[in-house]
Amino acid sequence: MKILLHQTHHTIGDFEAIEKTLLSILTRDGIHLFPELYLTGYPLGDLCLQSSFIEHYRRFFEKLSKTIEALPVNQEIVALIGGLEYEFSNEGVPNSIKNVIFEIKPGHPLKQIYTKRLLPNYDIFDEQKYFTAGTQPGVWSWNGKRFGLMVCEDMWASSFHKLDPAMDLAALGPFDAVLNLSASPFNVGKAEKRRDRARTLSHLFKAPFFYVNRVGAEDEILFDGASFAVNGDETLVMGPIFAAHTLTIPLPPKTDYKPVGTEICENTWESLFEARFSVDKSLPRRLHVWDDEECHQVLEGLKFSLQDYAQKNGFKKFVVALSGGMDSALALTIAKLSLASGQELEAVYMPGNFSAPLSWELSLQICQKLGIKLTSLPIKFLHSNVKMAFQSNFPDAFEGLTDENVQSRLRGMLIYTRSNQTGSMVINTSNKSEIAVGYSTQYGDSVGALSLLGDLYKSEVYRLAEWINANKGELIPKGIISRAPSAELRENQKDEDSLPPYDRLDAMLEGILSFRYNAQGLLSLGFYEDEVKRVFHLYSKTEYKRRQFCPIVKIKSKSFGFGYRVPISKNPGLYQA
Amino acid sequence: MKILLHQTHHTIGDFEAIEKTLLSILTRDGIHLFPELYLTGYPLGDLCLQSSFIEHYRRFFEKLSKTIEALPVNQEIVALIGGLEYEFSNEGVPNSIKNVIFEIKPGHPLKQIYTKRLLPNYDIFDEQKYFTAGTQPGVWSWNGKRFGLMVCEDMWASSFHKLDPAMDLAALGPFDAVLNLSASPFNVGKAEKRRDRARTLSHLFKAPFFYVNRVGAEDEILFDGASFAVNGDETLVMGPIFAAHTLTIPLPPKTDYKPVGTEICENTWESLFEARFSVDKSLPRRLHVWDDEECHQVLEGLKFSLQDYAQKNGFKKFVVALSGGMDSALALTIAKLSLASGQELEAVYMPGNFSAPLSWELSLQICQKLGIKLTSLPIKFLHSNVKMAFQSNFPDAFEGLTDENVQSRLRGMLIYTRSNQTGSMVINTSNKSEIAVGYSTQYGDSVGALSLLGDLYKSEVYRLAEWINANKGELIPKGIISRAPSAELRENQKDEDSLPPYDRLDAMLEGILSFRYNAQGLLSLGFYEDEVKRVFHLYSKTEYKRRQFCPIVKIKSKSFGFGYRVPISKNPGLYQA
Repeated sequence: MKILLHQTHHTIGDFEAIEKTLLSILTRDGIHLFPELYLTGYPLGDLCLQSSFIEHYRRFFEKLSKTIEALPVNQEIVALIGGLEYEFSNEGVPNSIKNVIFEIKPGHPLKQIYTKRLLPNYDIFDEQKYFTAGTQPGVWSWNGKRFGLMVCEDMWASSFHKLDPAMDLAALGPFDAVLNLSASPFNVGKAEKRRDRARTLSHLFKAPFFYVNRVGAEDEILFDGASFAVNGDETLVMGPIFAAHTLTIPLPPKTDYKPVGTEICENTWESLFEARFSVDKSLPRRLHVWDDEECHQVLEGLKFSLQDYAQKNGFKKFVVALSGGMDSALALTIAKLSLASGQELEAVYMPGNFSAPLSWELSLQICQKLGIKLTSLPIKFLHSNVKMAFQSNFPDAFEGLTDENVQSRLRGMLIYTRSNQTGSMVINTSNKSEIAVGYSTQYGDSVGALSLLGDLYKSEVYRLAEWINANKGELIPKGIISRAPSAELRENQKDEDSLPPYDRLDAMLEGILSFRYNAQGLLSLGFYEDEVKRVFHLYSKTEYKRRQFCPIVKIKSKSFGFGYRVPISKNPGLYQA
Repeated sequence: MKILLHQTHHTIGDFEAIEKTLLSILTRDGIHLFPELYLTGYPLGDLCLQSSFIEHYRRFFEKLSKTIEALPVNQEIVALIGGLEYEFSNEGVPNSIKNVIFEIKPGHPLKQIYTKRLLPNYDIFDEQKYFTAGTQPGVWSWNGKRFGLMVCEDMWASSFHKLDPAMDLAALGPFDAVLNLSASPFNVGKAEKRRDRARTLSHLFKAPFFYVNRVGAEDEILFDGASFAVNGDETLVMGPIFAAHTLTIPLPPKTDYKPVGTEICENTWESLFEARFSVDKSLPRRLHVWDDEECHQVLEGLKFSLQDYAQKNGFKKFVVALSGGMDSALALTIAKLSLASGQELEAVYMPGNFSAPLSWELSLQICQKLGIKLTSLPIKFLHSNVKMAFQSNFPDAFEGLTDENVQSRLRGMLIYTRSNQTGSMVINTSNKSEIAVGYSTQYGDSVGALSLLGDLYKSEVYRLAEWINANKGELIPKGIISRAPSAELRENQKDEDSLPPYDRLDAMLEGILSFRYNAQGLLSLGFYEDEVKRVFHLYSKTEYKRRQFCPIVKIKSKSFGFGYRVPISKNPGLYQA
């Protein structure tokens, strides 16, 4: 008996493509496993409540079920696949939606065989807003074998919800295998965490454990695939990341399983927020530095998310506002590395009064190396015109932040004008450190269709740039990596004049965002009181900028965006002491 | 025995102000009722998980409890007040947070007496993300009387959650009164819905029903107060809307109560989404037209939300980009009507190539009527400079949408430059119809700290303007109300050249957004196929604009913003047929 893990996806609600894929595999023998909610796409948000979606899904489902029922019976083929099951009130309004597994057998109608029990509701997850949880463990038999069934989060446990689906399922063994259909978002290191947990579960169930995961990027959320099968401590097979792929695995014989403790394995909103600090515990603490594998994952994830967004939203051209600094250089490089045939990428350099000649030279260098068209569109004249207009119409001084922000907003306006002109997708170039302390201009450098680097701290931006240079060819000029970061919005401006050095800033931010530390907590990690105060001050007063930020590709367990929900209006004193 | 309903609030986490208010009322005899989560503020989002918040709250709570315990015992005074109760894991991470009622008696420590049972999790509500529900109905005794307790949503029921707290509580009667502590957001007509339900509950419990509600604006969410007491069908007292106030009511004797059916009274994500159409059922359907009371509620709500946002975020100045059109005129008028002493409001008119002379005249007229400083800041020169820069650097045509959007984005940039110069808060002027069909320019007219009109359809904008003129003096020039709407971004542009007439557009949008109708549903309401197609097309392809829109004051049960969650990337075919 073979088990086939199909890690793939289609655009949300592209039922035609889904049907085509399904019918094509139903000719091959074995147990075909598809990801959670493969029949609809995930996450759907309010879409699952809209009649436009519900009606299309209902028609697709009925047609698919009839088509499969009309096929000749074949005992050697079965598919298990994630989908939605609706119940409607008398008025036709859905009053229950379940996240379920359907069994698909040639010659039979589709049959619902399991309902997901543990509905994640932390961070970006909203499943309890929409879905009704199942109450029974999943047991399924086919051709004389007995299987345990799980959907994604069911493999974890929640003391918050007082639920441990794995323990409940284990009580119903023995099984020949346990099967998990997932749509589990990527974050750095998550694949290993899943596999570790699966090994434990394999021992618990005394059976091999098969895990198939969605691949795809949905706006800010990224699914990595990395499907696998384990048996006891052994990994039988491991799928690629960020690529559609089918793994075929013969059902393995039982192996030696170890006894497993009954302690609950948490995966709630709190346990997920692992700050990643350096193993070296000297104070002040430093961020963990990504190893080769982690850099590889992040690069592949960012390339994939850009391409999937572009494909789903009809973009064939990309544009990056290049400044001669590190962030835009890395964003441009990633975009270039992701480029498919027929796609175009261009860079626009928009020098102002304080742009160093070096910025232009470095912009030219990187575009030559990457083979990208670069256009210079100076903003000096527009800038002075804006200044003149204000000086002749308003009595107030035109200086400081007013003068600085004009430059950034002119660039935002110009890059979007270019986007309108060519139909290109604007790639935002902000990093997580800037976003966290509001070191960006609203409607200026914060604009974009998608932020590639918005979940990377500045030090991680450098790390990834250096890793790319070491592994993908020397694409990013050394001069860009070595120069001091600057927004170039005033004379001799350097980031470190306004902000703590990035190695400390980034570690403090990780403490605040992922550990949710207060000032006392940061001091206990060895940070300096004046810097801690300054960081909290900047963080707390800039929530309004994050609220209108463009979607940020999520590569960590805690990111700005949909899963981050902090009021703008609040007592600023909360962050003191 | 007197019951005092304190409808009020403080800035989230302003514990000093909360303590001061509490201690000041503990000198007056009676049962003092404060709103849900009065001790912390609401909604908190992730703030309730941050150590900065948790630590401040813990210290405040302990100090308050000791202060009250140290007061002389007084049997005539008690307060019931909403707050949070935390349980922590061994690592100090919260593993349970409950939304509870505390009893406050002089001479005693604070005592938790009830945990909210029905945690709303639809639309803007995320309570199941953070809170653990209570499992027992609330019964509380004081000075020989027996009371039923509820927190907000407990007065409704949910078949989704299979929970009807009112029926459970009724089984534990008789009560001398039932008390509900709420933080219930405003929407048009909601106060009446609450009171209707309360009358039913009064009959069910065979006791008077007291309801105290939060007053305050938290970013986009607005709490209206409108606290009340009912006894059977009689309304004993009714608090004002959008104003802090204390109502004092003697505990009334029992009255005649009617038998009440046991059918479940829904208040789930679905039952809330009531589209509001005209009583006249002729086809195509029209939107319900706000009556005087509804116009009054909306105006007061918008004024209040602007003022509360400004006060909480430290703004004393406001600025509006005035176009000579209806939306900016109404936004300006509402801002003017809200103005407190010491505050300033100014208007900036930014004419471009296609701005009619009439637009300037009307802008001048309204500013004269309202007594507001108006400055003209022409964009023609900047516009032609941008065009020149593009024509000399890029080979592509500079025309159509490219040319149109530049004007809107220049205005966005300039109004924010003015905001930087004076520290003023930018009031966004977009309406819900525009936002729904993407008839706005990203980073152009979509900018702002807060959108006042973003939950009003265009026809409601007109209705409110006319109502203000009829009831607050002729503030808005008739010429603004009577001219055809235009974005003035190209020669002779009129909204109705691109969009269906607003009376039909708005009704179609209400069908889509609140009823979640598909095309078939709209056709059944009598709309025209070509217009239905066009509206769905515009709606479905502009999600990316709404994602980055500024916070919109929510005055309806379904609004764009935090409670509206639709993916950008999805199959566009979903909205056809």
